[in-house]
Amino acid sequence: MRHDHIISAKQLSRADIEEVLDRAAEIADDPTAFGDRHPGALLGLLFFEPSTRTKMSFTASIKRLGGDIVDMGPVEYSSVKKGESLADTVRVVEGYADALVLRHPMEGSATMASEFVDVPLINAGDGAGQHPTQTLLDLYTIRENAGLDDLSIGIMGDLKYGRTVHSLAHALTNFGASQHFISPESLQLPRNVRYDLHEEGATIREHTELDPVLDSLDVLYVTRIQEERFPDESEYREVAGEYRIDAETLEEAREDLTVLHPLPRVDEIDHDVDATDHAAYFEQAHNGVPVRMALLDLVLGGESQ
Amino acid sequence: MRHDHIISAKQLSRADIEEVLDRAAEIADDPTAFGDRHPGALLGLLFFEPSTRTKMSFTASIKRLGGDIVDMGPVEYSSVKKGESLADTVRVVEGYADALVLRHPMEGSATMASEFVDVPLINAGDGAGQHPTQTLLDLYTIRENAGLDDLSIGIMGDLKYGRTVHSLAHALTNFGASQHFISPESLQLPRNVRYDLHEEGATIREHTELDPVLDSLDVLYVTRIQEERFPDESEYREVAGEYRIDAETLEEAREDLTVLHPLPRVDEIDHDVDATDHAAYFEQAHNGVPVRMALLDLVLGGESQ
Amino acid sequence: MRHDHIISAKQLSRADIEEVLDRAAEIADDPTAFGDRHPGALLGLLFFEPSTRTKMSFTASIKRLGGDIVDMGPVEYSSVKKGESLADTVRVVEGYADALVLRHPMEGSATMASEFVDVPLINAGDGAGQHPTQTLLDLYTIRENAGLDDLSIGIMGDLKYGRTVHSLAHALTNFGASQHFISPESLQLPRNVRYDLHEEGATIREHTELDPVLDSLDVLYVTRIQEERFPDESEYREVAGEYRIDAETLEEAREDLTVLHPLPRVDEIDHDVDATDHAAYFEQAHNGVPVRMALLDLVLGGESQ
Repeated sequence: MRHDHIISAKQLSRADIEEVLDRAAEIADDPTAFGDRHPGALLGLLFFEPSTRTKMSFTASIKRLGGDIVDMGPVEYSSVKKGESLADTVRVVEGYADALVLRHPMEGSATMASEFVDVPLINAGDGAGQHPTQTLLDLYTIRENAGLDDLSIGIMGDLKYGRTVHSLAHALTNFGASQHFISPESLQLPRNVRYDLHEEGATIREHTELDPVLDSLDVLYVTRIQEERFPDESEYREVAGEYRIDAETLEEAREDLTVLHPLPRVDEIDHDVDATDHAAYFEQAHNGVPVRMALLDLVLGGESQ
Repeated sequence: MRHDHIISAKQLSRADIEEVLDRAAEIADDPTAFGDRHPGALLGLLFFEPSTRTKMSFTASIKRLGGDIVDMGPVEYSSVKKGESLADTVRVVEGYADALVLRHPMEGSATMASEFVDVPLINAGDGAGQHPTQTLLDLYTIRENAGLDDLSIGIMGDLKYGRTVHSLAHALTNFGASQHFISPESLQLPRNVRYDLHEEGATIREHTELDPVLDSLDVLYVTRIQEERFPDESEYREVAGEYRIDAETLEEAREDLTVLHPLPRVDEIDHDVDATDHAAYFEQAHNGVPVRMALLDLVLGGESQ
Repeated sequence: MRHDHIISAKQLSRADIEEVLDRAAEIADDPTAFGDRHPGALLGLLFFEPSTRTKMSFTASIKRLGGDIVDMGPVEYSSVKKGESLADTVRVVEGYADALVLRHPMEGSATMASEFVDVPLINAGDGAGQHPTQTLLDLYTIRENAGLDDLSIGIMGDLKYGRTVHSLAHALTNFGASQHFISPESLQLPRNVRYDLHEEGATIREHTELDPVLDSLDVLYVTRIQEERFPDESEYREVAGEYRIDAETLEEAREDLTVLHPLPRVDEIDHDVDATDHAAYFEQAHNGVPVRMALLDLVLGGESQ
């Protein structure tokens, strides 16, 4: 893989993705072997929006490779408040680091920013746009639990606004997965995403209920339905309740069904699922480390061990 | 010492405490000998409340051992704001670190959180509850300055709400100290703490004035009386003024009296005390590093040098 | 150079300055040779005001030397909020680090703080006071681009309130530069600064327009004119517009003119200047790393390689 910048999962071919996942598997197998991989490498963190897991796992990842971070900190305490443009900020900060990670609320910001810098820039979420490292860790977790070949996956919840879901759907198309989208009508896939998936040759079906499709799934990927998408709270509660799963729901599922969630969850997945063999969402979060280590290793120029 | 988690000073036996203090003394004696003790070890910092000295000294401690931190940062910028439960947060973050440090405003939170994680969790203060590393550094400073045997200690100020004071009193009971509690009547030890201390065989006496007991003390531990504990400002000023010490106050003390304070101070200790030989509160703060290094070293599995 | 604390550029002799700049040049030439220069050194960061580039570049600098940071974080989350004095805060924090960097809104705070600590303290800006590392990186950038001998420099914008400008003017006087100050009348050099520069033997001229002097300059140092200095927005716009430069403005300049700016810029320099050979303000920001590495190296006791 040779990309200056990692902006979107769409830019990654199946071979690119497999290179990252293979490297991640190598790392997960023996993390300490990579502990001195990039001594002294500095990763600049530019998070213009709150983040816990993405920021902490990038931090852990570069440190597990022997490198370190240079963190802008909360935007409220930065010179952005003095009216500096994003283009200027990234041009300054590239002088302090060997690669940059950017999260910014504005869709397209990562692409724009990447045009101003020479060091590699990784998009860690640009508003409603892309979040490629989330997609890579989702794919890694699916591959580890169910395999990516002949996969039957259900993707449930807010399919309209969830960038995570769109990225994942595009990426899975590379692997020929059967994709079942399960959501209330008001939160179905946007027309343009559906169109693009068809163009890419995706095998997709849309449902308004989980029940009829549950026992055919290898993986069920649950996302949060956000209250602010609904005109009033009672409507939200009713809809959200229908797409909520618990241990009882999963009694109808295949024994080896893997349940994923990008986290944080609020109550889409009952805590009684945590103790079942289906639950893989904490493992999924933890996989952020080997996957981001792999990506950083490739971006910073690491050869295979 | 083999504890998965360090939640309360009460869980530590006299032998446990002495193991930590001995290791801390070893470290203080030659800190650089420990500089490569835990290379690559990552300490996850979860501070749900503001903190300066505790957070900075944990940071310095793990770095002085050759390790590093993965910091959640201010809670305002974390996914906790999206409604994630503490149990979920710690289960995610344990994937990014080899041990966790938690400060949280809710009493009992550290115990609860520790039940969800496999990596060691250290309580750095849970509301009105426990703050064991503060107690350990207090004990270390007392031992270095006055010894823990045959100790006569005065503990003064807010004895009702101060978690620091309660932890310290319990721990000192292990060493048979004579404990004098000096406070206004409205801020005396809570009944249950007094009861527990008696049950544990503590030697305690309670006073409303420092003067009669001052010249018998090896150590005077001063804590802050908080304005918000009083119905009006004038009452606060009057009471606070009576439990404030300055260089003149200490003329009646023994020459080798050691004055401690958990800091930050507001004006309980006049700045003219700083220049006297009694003042050991900055040394006390600095001892946070060898003591936390010792604890981390033991928790992370370090053998004696 | 042997200074306990770096408080003001004024304390640095020409020889001191050249020692820092020479060391910075050595570092810029082969940064990796310094990567293990101060292993385990901890730099305490106390930023009581927002900062991006200063804080990030100090962070990168100590890490590029093999050391690390212990960061107080945003002051809103520190015990300063509990009423602790700056003197107490620095006395505590010096126990956690080998050197301190302080930014504080109050002029004179760095001098005051330095009197309470034994470890070296570097002033990273004290309100309207000094910011010596900015001056050093400015001098370094000027030396690299135009040389410090026989220099003709224009300093334009807000000359009344800009601490950067005052420090730079004093420092350039050591090198016998011809200094042209260009500003609206309302933002001219303060009388006391002008007086001091004359006393120090500076060669200065003051102008209200750039045009007559532009083609004599080796360096044009542009600073931001802040809207809040003006009674109303229209007056601000009019004045700011006159001291704004773009590629067309620079057609009248010498081919080798170097344009500098301490950043962040708002619109004092049009983006069309970025692509010209004149633009050196991003390079200037990047020079913060070798220059601060050099200063830290000297302060922490590094001998010449």
